[in-house]
Amino acid sequence: MNLADRVSQIEYAIRDVVVPATELEKKGITVIKLNIGDPLKFDFETPHHMTEALCQAAKDNMNFYGPSEGLPRLREAICKREQSLNGRTCNPGQIIVTNGISEGISMLFGALLEPSDEILVPGPTYPPYMAYTRFYGGNPVSYRTIEEEGWVPDIEDMEAKISKKTKAITVINPNNPTGAVYPKKVLMELQRVAADHDILLITDEIYDEMVFDKPHETFPVTDAPMVIVNGFSKVYLATGWRIGYAVFCNCDELKEGVLRQARIRLCTNTLCQVAAAEALEGSQEHIPLLVKKLKERRDFAWKRLNEIEGVSASKPEGAFYIFPKIPARDDKKFVLDLLKEKHVLFVHGSGFCPEFGKGHLRSVVLPTIDVLEEAYNRLEEFVKAHC
Amino acid sequence: MNLADRVSQIEYAIRDVVVPATELEKKGITVIKLNIGDPLKFDFETPHHMTEALCQAAKDNMNFYGPSEGLPRLREAICKREQSLNGRTCNPGQIIVTNGISEGISMLFGALLEPSDEILVPGPTYPPYMAYTRFYGGNPVSYRTIEEEGWVPDIEDMEAKISKKTKAITVINPNNPTGAVYPKKVLMELQRVAADHDILLITDEIYDEMVFDKPHETFPVTDAPMVIVNGFSKVYLATGWRIGYAVFCNCDELKEGVLRQARIRLCTNTLCQVAAAEALEGSQEHIPLLVKKLKERRDFAWKRLNEIEGVSASKPEGAFYIFPKIPARDDKKFVLDLLKEKHVLFVHGSGFCPEFGKGHLRSVVLPTIDVLEEAYNRLEEFVKAHC
Repeated sequence: MNLADRVSQIEYAIRDVVVPATELEKKGITVIKLNIGDPLKFDFETPHHMTEALCQAAKDNMNFYGPSEGLPRLREAICKREQSLNGRTCNPGQIIVTNGISEGISMLFGALLEPSDEILVPGPTYPPYMAYTRFYGGNPVSYRTIEEEGWVPDIEDMEAKISKKTKAITVINPNNPTGAVYPKKVLMELQRVAADHDILLITDEIYDEMVFDKPHETFPVTDAPMVIVNGFSKVYLATGWRIGYAVFCNCDELKEGVLRQARIRLCTNTLCQVAAAEALEGSQEHIPLLVKKLKERRDFAWKRLNEIEGVSASKPEGAFYIFPKIPARDDKKFVLDLLKEKHVLFVHGSGFCPEFGKGHLRSVVLPTIDVLEEAYNRLEEFVKAHC
Repeated sequence: MNLADRVSQIEYAIRDVVVPATELEKKGITVIKLNIGDPLKFDFETPHHMTEALCQAAKDNMNFYGPSEGLPRLREAICKREQSLNGRTCNPGQIIVTNGISEGISMLFGALLEPSDEILVPGPTYPPYMAYTRFYGGNPVSYRTIEEEGWVPDIEDMEAKISKKTKAITVINPNNPTGAVYPKKVLMELQRVAADHDILLITDEIYDEMVFDKPHETFPVTDAPMVIVNGFSKVYLATGWRIGYAVFCNCDELKEGVLRQARIRLCTNTLCQVAAAEALEGSQEHIPLLVKKLKERRDFAWKRLNEIEGVSASKPEGAFYIFPKIPARDDKKFVLDLLKEKHVLFVHGSGFCPEFGKGHLRSVVLPTIDVLEEAYNRLEEFVKAHC
């Protein structure tokens, strides 16, 4: 059976390193896993009022198909959040609820891309932006982000890479995998570039309230086309629920193209949508506590990693990742050898961008400090022995 | 903004007729909706032990990302069901859990189809089989099912339509939209045709235990490639949970092509997977009660529809649909006019197949008999007045 070209080249670095780790675990070896961005695997819990709302909805027999675009109550709540958090005015008709952000990216690119079209993605980037671009026959083009300046986008490099084939500029802020939080000035420049070239701006803000050193800033709504993607996996600690959303500003046709895809798959999980609405309408008390915990761990990770000779890390200002430079060109081999020898699992930087990620690794900063310390001690031993 | 060709032609008949119905409802008019196959919108409830398991999993903080292929416990339980219900031996490694069957279809066709490849689909068919084929640049080719013989597949017609481009034969049994349940002899013929031509067989069995007049039969595992798709929306009354699965028999490469897509979107809803495992492991008591209720309603619908002059319906032996012939060539106009005049909503038959579905409509038989009676009375008045 011949498979279609679109799937033959799919890579997914974050999960691909899991296979050798699982093999070690099958042998009874404990692996410290700093590879997957899932707070629920560490000492974080979904807020109680969200799980309560979920159970109540199940008991109320709300187990039915919802509207393809999402429950009205949830879309209303998302609009209120956009207004209060970001000062952006929108209405529920602009919103489509998706199975996590990943389905949103898939449906957006499914609606946008003809073969050989291009999507500008940050270098390094969250891998699905590259994977779905290729899946639909397009080419992801990485714009440089500048490590020395805290991984902020290189606007000149981005602008130079715009072509007639460019269908969208993707921004992830706070960024995965670097933890960068972009300054207002850079955001304004980014938005200007997109508008000047009449290119759709896609802004992924799933880590928006996870910022440590300055307030989260984002793009205002202008008259240019923009799609905001976001979800409940990170700030609302509900990764396994798979509830994300897209807000379409000044791009009704694109929304229609996504909605048509959404209709075929009927809807996203109805119960979790009810609970996601409750998440936005109810207590937000968990957020400052979450940010405080993450900041302590970020502080430790940044300090400790920079103490290792040959390793250097820019200070992440948001999300829960750190993206240090390592003393190895072949970062995938480094990560796999480290796993084999020291039983610590990171993701190789080239998995997030062959060009701008290589020679780095991504570590989550989600575990408690004692676990991070043990992991980074092992990393140090490995570097001393081999590099 | 130019949209990609793949989305410009997506149609989704079942949901498309909802728009004018919603407009009527906004005016305060009550519409009897016999269009959407969702038992939860009627007097059916998700079994209590399933919702209990869901709540317990949420309380146990199992809100994390699961494996992309699905939770091991659920895949184990699916294997046991395949063995006990269908006598088919499989292992958890052959299974991928999906966001409903619809995501399974999308990922299967995403892995299979190059432009202008063909998928053989029943005429009439559940629309996503046509929609996803087109989405990936392929052509759905409808094989005739014979109304006079209870909508069983016309094997000769199917075999005549096989070409070098045919990538799969799709079978839906019990069938949506006709309610047909295929005799063993027909199934054996179907499987022989697929094997003779070395073509993948895709068997959609989501209504498997919803049969009224004879036991459900299906394809045994042979050495030929086959994918079984199924889920928890119908027999387990959990439509809004969006949990489906695919079982890959003798097609490891295809499984790998689907798994690669599954990895990009991380996982399906973890909590609902736990509850789906509980659904299979726990009490099955709801199933005979469900079948009894549906059979009474099927009996009524079949009798009443055949009393209407100009309307005739083959007796459905499974699922919860009936697909009567109506005295109108333009079935979409008929359905929309009926909605406008009588406030009853069906789906036009041509939405399930332009060739073999036209001149028909699909009605669910899910409501209580008094609601069905009122709806069919209005249909009779409409037919008398206009046809």
